[in-house]
Amino acid sequence: MRSTAENAQLALLLEVSSTPKPGNVDREREYPDLRFEHFVTGAVGAREGLDLAADGRPVGAAFETAIEGMSLQSGGNTQFGAILLLMPLVGAAAADDLTPEGVTALVEDTTVADAAGFYRAFDHVDVAVDDPPADMDDLDVRRGSDAVSTLEDRGLTLADVMERSADVDSLAAEWTSGFPRTFEAADRIASGDGPVTDRAATVYIEMLAAAVDTFVVTQHDRETAEAVRDRAQGVLDGEESVETFAADLVARQINPGTTADLVAGGLFVALERGLEV
Amino acid sequence: MRSTAENAQLALLLEVSSTPKPGNVDREREYPDLRFEHFVTGAVGAREGLDLAADGRPVGAAFETAIEGMSLQSGGNTQFGAILLLMPLVGAAAADDLTPEGVTALVEDTTVADAAGFYRAFDHVDVAVDDPPADMDDLDVRRGSDAVSTLEDRGLTLADVMERSADVDSLAAEWTSGFPRTFEAADRIASGDGPVTDRAATVYIEMLAAAVDTFVVTQHDRETAEAVRDRAQGVLDGEESVETFAADLVARQINPGTTADLVAGGLFVALERGLEV
Repeated sequence: MRSTAENAQLALLLEVSSTPKPGNVDREREYPDLRFEHFVTGAVGAREGLDLAADGRPVGAAFETAIEGMSLQSGGNTQFGAILLLMPLVGAAAADDLTPEGVTALVEDTTVADAAGFYRAFDHVDVAVDDPPADMDDLDVRRGSDAVSTLEDRGLTLADVMERSADVDSLAAEWTSGFPRTFEAADRIASGDGPVTDRAATVYIEMLAAAVDTFVVTQHDRETAEAVRDRAQGVLDGEESVETFAADLVARQINPGTTADLVAGGLFVALERGLEV
Repeated sequence: MRSTAENAQLALLLEVSSTPKPGNVDREREYPDLRFEHFVTGAVGAREGLDLAADGRPVGAAFETAIEGMSLQSGGNTQFGAILLLMPLVGAAAADDLTPEGVTALVEDTTVADAAGFYRAFDHVDVAVDDPPADMDDLDVRRGSDAVSTLEDRGLTLADVMERSADVDSLAAEWTSGFPRTFEAADRIASGDGPVTDRAATVYIEMLAAAVDTFVVTQHDRETAEAVRDRAQGVLDGEESVETFAADLVARQINPGTTADLVAGGLFVALERGLEV
């Protein structure tokens, strides 16, 4: 039987192996400077941090270790969001309570030290984020470890940090609401049939059609993200081929990365629940 | 910096990610029952055994653990040969002597217990092998752990076992001759440019053109293996497209798996020597 850390690493690898996943790197599509091999290498490097999380170590420190390891490749940010989503899920699985309640309990138990680990992770890799509101300058995640003293002064836990982004970032929203979309993705993947990577690709399109991808909002704007959502629905309705959609998003460098992250989380939950590969 | 075990796992993943690799599963080609996702899962499962080898544990036990983990997927044998090739290389790297001499010293130090571990690995997965000579029936690897008492009675080490197959199996030949083709593959990969998976695919074709693939001999016959070797040379000479060659081998289920294993070994050596991804 695979261990929890192995399932988390496998989820990262199966996610990037799933194709077609319009706009994101997959087995058949990559960007000149952000390639499939960078994601594979990122998944190898993340393992040490995933092991720590599976050993019940504090989520912030485990996350920083995972991101430091993930960054040992030349493609830049490959799986920052997916690993952020996985961390409390891995912790909950390690505590034998991989449920919305179990993972919420783990999130609510996070500390200021966990928030510091999260910020320190930004020292290791460039992550595309929006400017913070004017009154949040001191807590811009791009400050990385330089923001730690502010976190400590204000006594902010990692749950507090996520709460502040939950309305603009779907991953933070998962963290603060029991991971509803992640568990739904897991159910959809588990109830599908055929190769796991085909099921994951299907669920990706379904999730992309169901809500705007907040990374596309950050990377481009809300209008672009809404257009992507609507075109994904068009693919499901047979109005556009998924290949055409994928080619266009790659050409315009529109990367619905948050939706891919949710699929990675769903793959992990499904694997923990016995999904066979 | 990546650890030795991480580099070994990464080598398995980069090998299967390299495309086109005519006849073998790669990012763009798979068989209905042996898919890309099975190789990815095999690489995740092999990690525990790779960790043991990197910790300097006996190569036979580490190999059995790696194969047991590799087998936790439904595709069957994915990386048996590649892991067999990697084991002494990982051990030599762990001893800080990843050279033909260092790996030969490790092979020469193998014991009867290592041979037993090698045989026990066959309990976990079906591997395509030839019938042994009539006087070797008791040592048919397909007997798995049932052959262990014979190994012990005859005092055969794993080096002895490899010696007996070196004339018909290129992996055994590597084991008993200082891994010349593996180190050559490493040099070629390291001296190439562009994406690592493109370099590995190129080296695969070059190696396929240089010698018959002994797995194709086992799986089909020598005539088929020689024809594959000559067509690979034809691809290098521009007489046939690599895509046509690949499509034909997949259609005829001709899998030059030993050549792919040598590429995996070469990737590992190159990564240990500082190849950047």
